[in-house]
Amino acid sequence: MKRKVYVQGTRPDIRVPFAEVELSGGNPPVRLYDTSGPLNDPPAGLPAMRAPWIAERGCPENQPRTQLHYARRGIVTPEMEFVAIREGVDAALVRDEIAAGRAILPNNVNHPESEPMIIGSRFLVKVNANIGTSAVTSGVEEEVAKLTWATKWGADTVMDLSTGKHIHATREAIIRNSPVPIGTVPLYQALEKVDGDPVKLSWEVYRDTIVEQAEQGVDYMTVHAGVLLRYVPMTAERVTGIVSRGGSIMAAWCLAHHEENFLYTNFAELCAIFARYDVSFSLGDGLRPGSIADANDQAQLAELRTLGELTRIAWDHDVQVMIEGPGHVPMHKIKENVDLQREWCHEAPFYTLGPLTTDVAPAYDHITSAIGAAMIAMYGTAMLCYVTPKEHLGLPDRDDVKAGVIAYKIAAHAADLAKGHPGAQEWDDALSKARFEFRWEDQFNLAMDPDTARSYHDETLPAAPAKTA
Amino acid sequence: MKRKVYVQGTRPDIRVPFAEVELSGGNPPVRLYDTSGPLNDPPAGLPAMRAPWIAERGCPENQPRTQLHYARRGIVTPEMEFVAIREGVDAALVRDEIAAGRAILPNNVNHPESEPMIIGSRFLVKVNANIGTSAVTSGVEEEVAKLTWATKWGADTVMDLSTGKHIHATREAIIRNSPVPIGTVPLYQALEKVDGDPVKLSWEVYRDTIVEQAEQGVDYMTVHAGVLLRYVPMTAERVTGIVSRGGSIMAAWCLAHHEENFLYTNFAELCAIFARYDVSFSLGDGLRPGSIADANDQAQLAELRTLGELTRIAWDHDVQVMIEGPGHVPMHKIKENVDLQREWCHEAPFYTLGPLTTDVAPAYDHITSAIGAAMIAMYGTAMLCYVTPKEHLGLPDRDDVKAGVIAYKIAAHAADLAKGHPGAQEWDDALSKARFEFRWEDQFNLAMDPDTARSYHDETLPAAPAKTA
Repeated sequence: MKRKVYVQGTRPDIRVPFAEVELSGGNPPVRLYDTSGPLNDPPAGLPAMRAPWIAERGCPENQPRTQLHYARRGIVTPEMEFVAIREGVDAALVRDEIAAGRAILPNNVNHPESEPMIIGSRFLVKVNANIGTSAVTSGVEEEVAKLTWATKWGADTVMDLSTGKHIHATREAIIRNSPVPIGTVPLYQALEKVDGDPVKLSWEVYRDTIVEQAEQGVDYMTVHAGVLLRYVPMTAERVTGIVSRGGSIMAAWCLAHHEENFLYTNFAELCAIFARYDVSFSLGDGLRPGSIADANDQAQLAELRTLGELTRIAWDHDVQVMIEGPGHVPMHKIKENVDLQREWCHEAPFYTLGPLTTDVAPAYDHITSAIGAAMIAMYGTAMLCYVTPKEHLGLPDRDDVKAGVIAYKIAAHAADLAKGHPGAQEWDDALSKARFEFRWEDQFNLAMDPDTARSYHDETLPAAPAKTA
Repeated sequence: MKRKVYVQGTRPDIRVPFAEVELSGGNPPVRLYDTSGPLNDPPAGLPAMRAPWIAERGCPENQPRTQLHYARRGIVTPEMEFVAIREGVDAALVRDEIAAGRAILPNNVNHPESEPMIIGSRFLVKVNANIGTSAVTSGVEEEVAKLTWATKWGADTVMDLSTGKHIHATREAIIRNSPVPIGTVPLYQALEKVDGDPVKLSWEVYRDTIVEQAEQGVDYMTVHAGVLLRYVPMTAERVTGIVSRGGSIMAAWCLAHHEENFLYTNFAELCAIFARYDVSFSLGDGLRPGSIADANDQAQLAELRTLGELTRIAWDHDVQVMIEGPGHVPMHKIKENVDLQREWCHEAPFYTLGPLTTDVAPAYDHITSAIGAAMIAMYGTAMLCYVTPKEHLGLPDRDDVKAGVIAYKIAAHAADLAKGHPGAQEWDDALSKARFEFRWEDQFNLAMDPDTARSYHDETLPAAPAKTA
């Protein structure tokens, strides 16, 4: 049987959830990391668990309120303690890794419903799931259901990539019901405000959008500030040009105005806003490769160097930063991505989309990319953005969200094992022991997806199976 | 549009099939490796394409008739030329790699219906699919349909692991309808002959079974000759003991008789039989790890050294050899498997089952293992035995066979890219160019699974999609 249990910290309102699996045959229970949250019926909204912690810090207006700010001052916040219990590590490690910029704890002060989590190479590898309405599909309730569904299967953060109408209302419903940090790409909403014409974008429109989203409680934002005017021509000879939507929007703006990217030129002001809410940067890789042919090319690496430069500026403002990475990369070029990112971006956490290790299997890109994701995480990537079977083909539905999350939880856990994360192998050992002893119910309950494991078994072997060994 | 084309060799009866994809917009067609065979309606039987080649060699009875025998004498057989055209390499390379034992061309002289293919680290990574009846399910026609289905999706060889009744008839139907080499584990049939009691097994029963299967045309056989009596106790402290069915049968026999494995003690006679038919050895890893905890342990590695010893003996008889490998291995221990196998087994081709990189996701082991398979193939494994979503849970149906083959074709192709196999990236480049230019039909036709790619696209975006870049 699987049930939710809570471990209390040094104060009664630090209650860290785990999924505890009870086992038969005198075997000790196994506690698993749990992202599912209180599982309220949406859209009722979740309790504001962190509200007292934020209030107690009594930070004056316009001062940094970031976890990085506190960590650098040697303070272990309740959020850090929560994370330490969750990860099974010392709170001092959490604080020190945040202080060094090697990890982030993305928690907007206006998203008190969130359960703290950490993104950094010394911690469990995390998985992000993308959801969001488009001009043609989805309603608010459907997206909140996808959010709950994604966290049920283990998504550690969720990005709301909504476009079309009702962006604000959709995001509000998602944040109020999310036990995990929420990320966005504010450029998408800014573009809606100028009728979808990149040329009409301006710093002012973008800044107002950032403030609007920060007020709502967005925990991290993808900002394509590294797409510099002089890098755009580097993509001309590519097989797949610029495939990042944000990257292509900013490239179009730069070329139309023949000016430097306004996100780059106004980056310090951006940092000041982010610091007030504790919004973390996810510095976007607008020039990421969109095919095997374009991997690790000049455009991609030029932008990566600029992201390293911006990381320093954000840190000067006490703002937390992670760096986005590709995309499409053949296996033999994956490690170079991590090595260069670590060096050029001063060990800020890496957050990669896959990468896909081949381009030839549309409809199976959760698999082509789980291979690359597992490898890049083994080399040190801290969070993996999932890819669903619908990548390149259409918008993911509920089944696709689950398929993507599970493929990526597999990749993340395989990397945790390879990195020797303390405690990671206990899960495998418990399941394998159950398997060898034919404790089927224990095996199902320990499985990443108990429902499917049970149904596959019952489908062909409804009776007690023959022992084959 | 995708159609089958043939490239003729130096003689008119060498006709090598390819799947040619015609593209729009003036783009040149792309030719893909094709395993689907003539696609006859089973069980009519396929034409005996190789019959003249075998007859022409006019080999006297009881003499070696193996591709290794000819390669060592500097002869390029029609089979080797066929393979060279298929792989886009020089026929001399094919011959030399076979002669050196670094590659095998598994083609029993009694399976003239097969289209030659090669297994070796200098060539395209290959995929095996397991099928077969069990005591409780499947009929002959169903298994032949699975064979045809597996090769349609790209299986390079198929293993018939049938148990229960009708083993001989099932295998006959499979071989006569198979355009790809067929492998078996003869121990399963030998065990049926002694009423399922391992203790009653004998060299004589096994030998007769081998001859029966070789006469039918089995191209390679898994032989668990490395499970030595003294290795069995090494598995006592494992989390998952012995998980290989063949391994556990031979271990039971050794312990019951307290004698050395009869496959080991009679190995030279086995070789003499294999040489007459050109059956290749797949030296089985009966002590492979069945869990992350047991990976790369003493039992596994002790057996691997013995497989290297047996490889030399087989080569002395002009018999072709490949070596089976694990199983369950965390990512950081994968490379060691390839390095030790290459050293201890004198560069004989490696043929691995996955490996699974974590134990915690039953129902998704095609994914947990595709990660390991891609990596181990990048390091030099020549053929990958697929794992289906039903692994550990039940018997694979048609959908599972397809899911397993596709996941493994992805792993194999990702490795071909990483190894820089000549021509491998052309496929990716053609598909990515089609994607970037919104040539949807070209993208679908180039996809590994055009049907699913097309249906996913049409499901959410029935109208012409908006260009996002």
